[in-house]
Amino acid sequence: MYRPEIKVLDCTLRDGGLMNDHQFKPDFVRRVFKAVNDAGVDYIEMGYKADESQFSREKYGAMKFCSEADLEKVVNGQEKKAKISVMVDIGRVDPKCIPPKGESHVDMMRVASYIKDIDKAINLINDISSKGYETTINIMAVSHAREQDLDEALEQLEKESAADIVYLVDSFGALYSEQIAYLAKKYKSILKTKELGIHAHNNQQLAFGNTIEAIINNVNYLDATILGIGRAAGNCPLELLLGFLKNPKFDLRPILTILGNDFVKLKEEIEWGYVIPYMITGTLDLHPRQGMALRKTDQKDDYLSFYEKLLNEANV
Amino acid sequence: MYRPEIKVLDCTLRDGGLMNDHQFKPDFVRRVFKAVNDAGVDYIEMGYKADESQFSREKYGAMKFCSEADLEKVVNGQEKKAKISVMVDIGRVDPKCIPPKGESHVDMMRVASYIKDIDKAINLINDISSKGYETTINIMAVSHAREQDLDEALEQLEKESAADIVYLVDSFGALYSEQIAYLAKKYKSILKTKELGIHAHNNQQLAFGNTIEAIINNVNYLDATILGIGRAAGNCPLELLLGFLKNPKFDLRPILTILGNDFVKLKEEIEWGYVIPYMITGTLDLHPRQGMALRKTDQKDDYLSFYEKLLNEANV
Repeated sequence: MYRPEIKVLDCTLRDGGLMNDHQFKPDFVRRVFKAVNDAGVDYIEMGYKADESQFSREKYGAMKFCSEADLEKVVNGQEKKAKISVMVDIGRVDPKCIPPKGESHVDMMRVASYIKDIDKAINLINDISSKGYETTINIMAVSHAREQDLDEALEQLEKESAADIVYLVDSFGALYSEQIAYLAKKYKSILKTKELGIHAHNNQQLAFGNTIEAIINNVNYLDATILGIGRAAGNCPLELLLGFLKNPKFDLRPILTILGNDFVKLKEEIEWGYVIPYMITGTLDLHPRQGMALRKTDQKDDYLSFYEKLLNEANV
Repeated sequence: MYRPEIKVLDCTLRDGGLMNDHQFKPDFVRRVFKAVNDAGVDYIEMGYKADESQFSREKYGAMKFCSEADLEKVVNGQEKKAKISVMVDIGRVDPKCIPPKGESHVDMMRVASYIKDIDKAINLINDISSKGYETTINIMAVSHAREQDLDEALEQLEKESAADIVYLVDSFGALYSEQIAYLAKKYKSILKTKELGIHAHNNQQLAFGNTIEAIINNVNYLDATILGIGRAAGNCPLELLLGFLKNPKFDLRPILTILGNDFVKLKEEIEWGYVIPYMITGTLDLHPRQGMALRKTDQKDDYLSFYEKLLNEANV
């Protein structure tokens, strides 16, 4: 009934951390790790491995950096059933600070890249892979890619990169199911030796539905977050995905517990999820940054003006 | 590009009214009608035509009854571009109180029925149809139907009923896209002379995604509500559906205006939409009533106990 190749990756702390500069309380981070680990989720992404010469620990929480000492405090002696992932952004990581796999808590590193940076991404992936890590490339903002550029990037990834998994990333929450199916088929047809992943955003309440569509189209690595926490409209809700997948290794209970104990309160402190400005940027296939800026102003619910402004900008 | 046969039916006031006994302020009802009418939406469902000998105007708002005088106050002299729909429940309407179409503001009557009541539904539909109204049957809770019973009901509707449109209703928000596609194909194969409709619930954040799946499978009548308001987890959000459909007759602006002016505040007064207890009932394919009861108690966020309780009941 279930497909054993399917792997779930929880990125609650990583994508959620984009909404509060990763300023989660250490106890909360430990509880998230424990819940996700206990739920039988395959991977947990703790945060970014950001260059400490570029980003300060005064502004950002520990999970922006994910040093071995930072991760040690989170794992805190628990039996590690989930593999640990961290994300690295091109140009924001110092590759010299990545130790060999044998000296790290990290199992997988995910490289986020726009198509224009694909050569840099491949170099970084191959370097990280040679140190013994599983690697992925997350090709961001695919809804803005020219098809020819995308085809070329995928061919290059297939031939030149050591990446184990290539992610289809709907950064703007703009894609509909038929477009997800089209892209997943394209990725599969070119990336014959790679696994595929999906990272969806929920601007149009399609993150879960599009993840299901991706599953139908042979995507096996699925990103999700607790209560969908993540940048702007957030991601595919982990609780929905675990409810859908039939693999008996998953247990929804630890997630339900932390949802009630921690996420109800967190939702009052940080805003994420479906609100109309993110729906508008999603519908128009735009980065959510203007929506995020709007939500910090007194005009946060002046949807019509926001819509007209974005339409006018698009028509200039 | 767009499919001209597609019709959107807004049921903001009807399904939303289930969350407050239709106790909307008269001004609000008029603003909803104006916004939906101005947006170019094809149908607006105002509420129910409930039997006044069974239900009291002390407990319920005017849109529970939708008398001609009630509707007159809502239309309020505006040019009627949208057709007006009302819903009737088997056994809760007095057919004698339905005037001939020529004497009514109503264009369409929708009969909600469980499969077991299909004979009563057909009698009622044929009576209403003979008075000149467009009619639909909304077969509720199809996720609980035995396949043989469903097949028989569909065949009977095709042969014996005057219904113009047959709705696929995912009352519990339990269906996934493949099941929607399966059912839509089944309905189409049996109901050769009828149009199909879809009414989805958002327990698993799939109402919009499943509506798109239904469109792909030749369903032309689409239910939606502003901000997804409706019973429990609510429905397919109208703003998302209008953003998706390419027909230039639709204008999102009046909906964005009322979203900002009225629905932000309404959401603070009435609870609807995705919360974990409704996710749980959806995942387990159960009526949301236990979730709705839970949300009125101090244990409203005790998700694990609620989940265990429902699982235990299912295993008895």
